[in-house]
Amino acid sequence: MSAEEVLENIRKEIIKKSPKEAKIVDVQFEGPEVVVYVKNPEIFTNEIIKSLAKDLRKRISIRPDPSVLVEPEIAKQKILEIVPEEAEITNFVFDANTGEVIIESKKPGLVIGKEGKTLEMIKKAIRWAPKPVRTPPIQSETIKAIRATLYRERHEVKEILRRIGRRIHRDIVVRGDYWIRVSFLGGAREVGRSCLYVQTPDTRVLIDCGINVACEDKAFPHFDAPEFSIEDLDAVIVTHAHLDHCGFIPGLFRYGYDGPVYCTRPTRDLMTLLQKDYLEIAKKEGKEVPYTSKDIKTCVKHTIPIDYGVTTDISPTIKLTLHNAGHVLGSAIAHLHIGEGLYNLAYTGDIKFETSRLLEPAVCQFPRLETLIIESTYGAYDDVLPEREEAERELLRVVSETTDRGGKVLIPVFGVGRAQELMLVLEEGYNQGIFNAPVYLDGMIWEATAIHTAYPEYLSKEMRQKIFHEGDNPFLSEVFKRVGSTNERRKVIDSDEPCVILATSGMLTGGPSVEYLKHLAPDEKNAIIFVGYQAEGTLGRKVQSGWKEIPIITRNGKTKSIPINLQVYTIEGFSGHSDRKQLIKYIRRLKPSPEKIIMVHGEESKCLDFADTVRRLFKKQTYVPMNLDAIRVK
Amino acid sequence: MSAEEVLENIRKEIIKKSPKEAKIVDVQFEGPEVVVYVKNPEIFTNEIIKSLAKDLRKRISIRPDPSVLVEPEIAKQKILEIVPEEAEITNFVFDANTGEVIIESKKPGLVIGKEGKTLEMIKKAIRWAPKPVRTPPIQSETIKAIRATLYRERHEVKEILRRIGRRIHRDIVVRGDYWIRVSFLGGAREVGRSCLYVQTPDTRVLIDCGINVACEDKAFPHFDAPEFSIEDLDAVIVTHAHLDHCGFIPGLFRYGYDGPVYCTRPTRDLMTLLQKDYLEIAKKEGKEVPYTSKDIKTCVKHTIPIDYGVTTDISPTIKLTLHNAGHVLGSAIAHLHIGEGLYNLAYTGDIKFETSRLLEPAVCQFPRLETLIIESTYGAYDDVLPEREEAERELLRVVSETTDRGGKVLIPVFGVGRAQELMLVLEEGYNQGIFNAPVYLDGMIWEATAIHTAYPEYLSKEMRQKIFHEGDNPFLSEVFKRVGSTNERRKVIDSDEPCVILATSGMLTGGPSVEYLKHLAPDEKNAIIFVGYQAEGTLGRKVQSGWKEIPIITRNGKTKSIPINLQVYTIEGFSGHSDRKQLIKYIRRLKPSPEKIIMVHGEESKCLDFADTVRRLFKKQTYVPMNLDAIRVK
Repeated sequence: MSAEEVLENIRKEIIKKSPKEAKIVDVQFEGPEVVVYVKNPEIFTNEIIKSLAKDLRKRISIRPDPSVLVEPEIAKQKILEIVPEEAEITNFVFDANTGEVIIESKKPGLVIGKEGKTLEMIKKAIRWAPKPVRTPPIQSETIKAIRATLYRERHEVKEILRRIGRRIHRDIVVRGDYWIRVSFLGGAREVGRSCLYVQTPDTRVLIDCGINVACEDKAFPHFDAPEFSIEDLDAVIVTHAHLDHCGFIPGLFRYGYDGPVYCTRPTRDLMTLLQKDYLEIAKKEGKEVPYTSKDIKTCVKHTIPIDYGVTTDISPTIKLTLHNAGHVLGSAIAHLHIGEGLYNLAYTGDIKFETSRLLEPAVCQFPRLETLIIESTYGAYDDVLPEREEAERELLRVVSETTDRGGKVLIPVFGVGRAQELMLVLEEGYNQGIFNAPVYLDGMIWEATAIHTAYPEYLSKEMRQKIFHEGDNPFLSEVFKRVGSTNERRKVIDSDEPCVILATSGMLTGGPSVEYLKHLAPDEKNAIIFVGYQAEGTLGRKVQSGWKEIPIITRNGKTKSIPINLQVYTIEGFSGHSDRKQLIKYIRRLKPSPEKIIMVHGEESKCLDFADTVRRLFKKQTYVPMNLDAIRVK
Repeated sequence: MSAEEVLENIRKEIIKKSPKEAKIVDVQFEGPEVVVYVKNPEIFTNEIIKSLAKDLRKRISIRPDPSVLVEPEIAKQKILEIVPEEAEITNFVFDANTGEVIIESKKPGLVIGKEGKTLEMIKKAIRWAPKPVRTPPIQSETIKAIRATLYRERHEVKEILRRIGRRIHRDIVVRGDYWIRVSFLGGAREVGRSCLYVQTPDTRVLIDCGINVACEDKAFPHFDAPEFSIEDLDAVIVTHAHLDHCGFIPGLFRYGYDGPVYCTRPTRDLMTLLQKDYLEIAKKEGKEVPYTSKDIKTCVKHTIPIDYGVTTDISPTIKLTLHNAGHVLGSAIAHLHIGEGLYNLAYTGDIKFETSRLLEPAVCQFPRLETLIIESTYGAYDDVLPEREEAERELLRVVSETTDRGGKVLIPVFGVGRAQELMLVLEEGYNQGIFNAPVYLDGMIWEATAIHTAYPEYLSKEMRQKIFHEGDNPFLSEVFKRVGSTNERRKVIDSDEPCVILATSGMLTGGPSVEYLKHLAPDEKNAIIFVGYQAEGTLGRKVQSGWKEIPIITRNGKTKSIPINLQVYTIEGFSGHSDRKQLIKYIRRLKPSPEKIIMVHGEESKCLDFADTVRRLFKKQTYVPMNLDAIRVK
């Protein structure tokens, strides 16, 4: 049966089972959903929708037919008429593809009204489905740009979604054995260029597609694996927005991919920010890049955001559910429910199994689980990190000492995740009077923070509370100063005033952190604090391990040697990764307990050590694949 | 550089370095060789050829240019004039593609003459290169047919060889990592459908491609493996002529392969015989087959026979050497010398590490060896087989007892290998008067035996001796009677005379052995002796394990139950496989000792048990892959 025939059958079924008064205009596959366009969406109660979804075993979305939607400009006017002025509406975002309008306001309660009455009135007046949200305290340029792209190119986006939908819902016949295997195209026995390739007789899925910014000859995943075929890919899943997991995604579109990218909404926005930043830094440094900003835009148009816990068909035989991974905002564990034999495979991506200042700990319960693929960054015997509280005290001590003697503190950080965690620590220390100096934010940190404030539902309960009692929003503290230009950076460097500088990149592989180091390194009054993992081969690892001089390429392309006189500190305990104890605890807490556990994302010795321990402790089959190995899990 | 440009450079080099008087007419890639066509081949001494081969790092073959060759009919006359009549010439085989003529005679010494003088005279008179061989004592129809095909279609064969040659010698550039991996498409944790797929960045090689005749839904290898692409195959290697290793080879041509098949000459001939037999039996039983006899012929035309110990380029980066495996006539261990890093991988196919009546034991020394892939048929703890001498005594005892009481002995055997071993035992027993009854040979056994006598150089020294002192040739003993038709089979069954019957197939999966069983089973006077491995699911395994009744499909398609009253014996010790002790001894004797050992070709528990033992005993990395696993070895 062709996808068209499958759709035709679904259409008939829906029309038969729906109330006539709803006036169904059209039924379409759009991405993973079956979308029903109707003239009277309010007729569809939740019960009717649930019952349809159950019968058809598909995700059903009921939408107002475009013909009944009021023009956006007029709709805005009508909303402003209905909602009381005290609500302070700041923005409208019309999504023509979903028939929704996001209404940003300072007091969303007033947009909803008593028992939702105001909302009902809006709905009736404009026919769009209104989604009231609180105005984010910091505006994100990235989110604005993404929304603009999606609105401007809404017709193309709709076409893309329908094409993807037809592919997902195609009718397939599997003969013989139903097997499932995973090929490791990158990130096996290494950190960087994470890339898993899941294959079944009918489906091909790529999970993550990172780049290793620290190593030019191992920068990209093994696309030369004989089983890899970009045209045959059904889906791409991104666990989180760090370059070693998402850096190559736009490159896939450059090389012919035109299918969906599944991730959470924060991951979509943060990865877009990171990819743009990656291109900018590479351009400045004259490096070759595998894609352009046009490809990033194409990627955005193909991205289908999904929330934690929502199960989604991504192929005729695979269902995807994302679960919180606790690592960075929007980071996810990808759980696949596969095929005829109903096999379950989860890949942790990077996980933190502990409540951090920003996030809840990683999810460890799944409906079913046969194979787990887990990161091993801190998997070795001696990879036990200090408690976070201890690390925080140490950080504030170094900051206070250094600024007291008039020095500057450079903290190279990942812009996404670590930076925000540190901001919270520094803000608290500043408030408590532990140090008294400004904290400069350079690189993409400001913008990444803005994205954090746009998705409060992805933050820990405590953080959510804080952010929305605006007086209390730590990110808005006066201690933080944004460095927005080369000139401003120059001023920070040249000034005699002691300060703290948070700057990307986190491993000194380019970006402003390297610029600051060049100028701060010779003066022993200053300090550098490493708070994250420094990969082999990076400048960060060199400085961390005690090099007394580092080669720097100057503006005119010459190599110059710079003495490292500043104080070098490594403070562990801020990692977004689980340490050894947490990894083991995670495996112990897993429900259900999987049969097979595959170790990836760690230096070779750490993966092997971790696998050995898990085999002994839990009597599990463990595997430590190499890149280009393929493991059949079923 | 294109292959044409590479060839042009080689041409220039050869012309520059060769004596002018040789008169070089053409230089071509033909299969793995660089062939130099010259008007005066005798000018090229072995030293010149060796030095050219060394400089060019290619196999060089000097051949008379077709323009100087005397017409075959005239050449025959000239040879008969030169060679004395007492030589008893029985056949000429002209190979237009090599410029050679095989001269079969009863006394090849007389064709050679004193100090090779007669040979020299022949060469001068006809310009073909004469190869005197002894007339095989039994004529093989298979060999005759193969030779006829190759002569009739010599122009096409030459074209095929040149095309293959250009592909082997293409110029390649490898960027980045040079990796080597093996995918297991069949025969992993099972016996049947053996199939390995070796991949590097530039080369794809298939080693063996068998069928499992015992299991319809697992009959063929996993061609659905995502990395498998028939168009990209550089070469196919066949280790030996048993259907579980070579059964699917002609099917590859049916599905688009048009490259070379490398194996020994006996393997080529025996596998052709087996494949034809497989088609015939399947046709009779109304089963679907994956190819036709035309595909078998295509396969023969693409086969490049290579001798043990000769190293051959099969791709720009892989060199193949075949070594004796001791399992059946022409069986080989495939040794690959791979790539830039010069990595060495050997696959044993099936091995016997013991001198048998027919063959020398498997080779265990290699120039270099990093990874070994080894069979595990008898790899488990209790898989220790009795000594051959003991098994022989037991066999003769059962034969003598059964025939003495007027019964018939049915021995289902593989036509290739086991049958000939048993013939030697029975012939000796008959000569010694241990039993006195005829031995009937049904199925392909006679023809397979004929092929054995055509390749004495592949037999053990002792056997070679025997066969060529004709009075002594055990295969020609009066005890053996050929069953050539259904009528003759009927007579053997109906007669009251006691007898021994050797019949294929060896696991009662079809063929005459099943026919005999139907008629002999009800009578308790009779006996059946299993002398080989009976795979799970076969009728052989059922009878062996004591079923008292078996279902048989009658001529008119109905199922009938037949009582098993005859005596059932299993005599181990005749296996062509090494038992556990021999396998372990083989690994101990390996020189050099490899780093990694991969276990295949055995039931799951046997592979696991064997791997465990080897890991403990020899402190080696061992692997027990599943079908569809891919292991990166470098």
